[in-house]
Amino acid sequence: MGKATLAARPRTILLVHAHPEPTSFTRHLVTVAERTLAGQGHTVLQSDLYAMQWKAVFDADDFPQRLDTQRLSFIDESRHAFAQGCQTADVEAEQAKLQAADAVILVFPLWWFGMPAIMKGWIERVWAYGLAYGYGDAGNAHRYGEGGFAGKRALLAVSVGGPEKDYSPRGINGPLEQLLFPVTHGALFYPGMAVLPTFAVYDTGRMDASVADRATMAWRQRLENLFTDAPIPYRRQNGGDYPDRHVLADDVAPGQTGIMAHVAGVMDSSIPARSPLGVQDGPAGPQKHASATRPISPQP
Amino acid sequence: MGKATLAARPRTILLVHAHPEPTSFTRHLVTVAERTLAGQGHTVLQSDLYAMQWKAVFDADDFPQRLDTQRLSFIDESRHAFAQGCQTADVEAEQAKLQAADAVILVFPLWWFGMPAIMKGWIERVWAYGLAYGYGDAGNAHRYGEGGFAGKRALLAVSVGGPEKDYSPRGINGPLEQLLFPVTHGALFYPGMAVLPTFAVYDTGRMDASVADRATMAWRQRLENLFTDAPIPYRRQNGGDYPDRHVLADDVAPGQTGIMAHVAGVMDSSIPARSPLGVQDGPAGPQKHASATRPISPQP
Repeated sequence: MGKATLAARPRTILLVHAHPEPTSFTRHLVTVAERTLAGQGHTVLQSDLYAMQWKAVFDADDFPQRLDTQRLSFIDESRHAFAQGCQTADVEAEQAKLQAADAVILVFPLWWFGMPAIMKGWIERVWAYGLAYGYGDAGNAHRYGEGGFAGKRALLAVSVGGPEKDYSPRGINGPLEQLLFPVTHGALFYPGMAVLPTFAVYDTGRMDASVADRATMAWRQRLENLFTDAPIPYRRQNGGDYPDRHVLADDVAPGQTGIMAHVAGVMDSSIPARSPLGVQDGPAGPQKHASATRPISPQP
Repeated sequence: MGKATLAARPRTILLVHAHPEPTSFTRHLVTVAERTLAGQGHTVLQSDLYAMQWKAVFDADDFPQRLDTQRLSFIDESRHAFAQGCQTADVEAEQAKLQAADAVILVFPLWWFGMPAIMKGWIERVWAYGLAYGYGDAGNAHRYGEGGFAGKRALLAVSVGGPEKDYSPRGINGPLEQLLFPVTHGALFYPGMAVLPTFAVYDTGRMDASVADRATMAWRQRLENLFTDAPIPYRRQNGGDYPDRHVLADDVAPGQTGIMAHVAGVMDSSIPARSPLGVQDGPAGPQKHASATRPISPQP
């Protein structure tokens, strides 16, 4: 079966997004995704977190039927609520969408080098014990490459206000894919998803039409390849690299430490996020002058 | 002036914390901090985010007097609201506490390898344009080591549910200090704070009394040294290492890429968080058996 055939098979994709302004670049990416994926015959589900007024804060109200009404343990109550079917309706609805989805795309503006609080709170509340961690009630036996979301793909699409060079391998902010490692590796690969390289668009606060067009075309291409692109080769917990399930074996990436040691085949410490806008570390081109005069910030 | 004299000088410390359960280990760390610091003669301010029912979601309600009522730009509205003094009362109150503080301590449970959504939302809403970014309305001229919070110290104190070895230099989750880099470097050093090495306690879901006592003693010691411990040596934007304000000069950490290149003097890719509980990568000891039978999770 060739790539074209695979891509054409109808699937279900969940778009989760977090920007309240309909004309924002984040929402533009959502619209392009919706049209491109539907145009390929896929079913598109959405969670528009701002429009839904998603409850961002994980708290006692998440557990209407408490296991222990005296002391709030999030793990114990999450395990109980998921196992007993007494979660809140909003959380159950998101879990149902996830279960139906072959792929999940999280679209968000980079705020202080991470996802907005409303999306972090979506993860915290929906990623239940027994589903996204403690899978099969077997502690950490199944994690990093297997678990409740195994077989699904995940992709981050990120609007970044600052210039790409700030996120280049030696850029002052750090490489975007490393800043997002707690999300891609920690929140998505952990429960079993295959995570694709992040799609990022930079300088979204001051794009001209031609740059926006190029970004849109690149985004369409990523969407068309959603089920054929190679995921980030994160190492599976139970694939042999972690004999005790905790620490890399001595002969795996020998001597290497840090987050990038968990990406197979990456011997240096940088894996750049894929960008549609050319080289990582080259001259900023037309943006260079603008950056000296117009504010750039971590809050697009 | 010796260390003891410096430590004894009365200062103001802001404790920001995020756990609703009064008997949680997170709240224990808060209580110890409050008592230890007050006992040294310092003034302690608090932001108990759950008790305050802190609004986690950054949205149009943050801008009661809009610059542009048609289109919501967070940067433009934040700049306008901060400059014109028309922010919301809750945000102004937090900024006033920050301005009064010589040090800020953020105490939280590690949820999905980052801070809880309610605390991320505290950063997003309080870190205004003109204060925490776009300082002096000069774009990115002042960031990473200078800016609105220059002269203040910052410290993260983190309750971690999983075992320390998972966060060791070659541990499966990645080193804690690298997972927290978007917070320490990106949210705290960015507006000018001097950030101390993270204080972490692991396995908080199943600590016996003696382990908890050791952690408490280690925490007290960190608190006593709050104004004398050496900060993480993050490179300052305007200290000479980034001649164009964006990318490391070729002769600085030559050949090194990734987030750790921004820590002066660290040539490998790992800087472990300080833990009170011994070696990073040794045998798990008494926890080892427990870890096979009791669930460990990213959600303490």
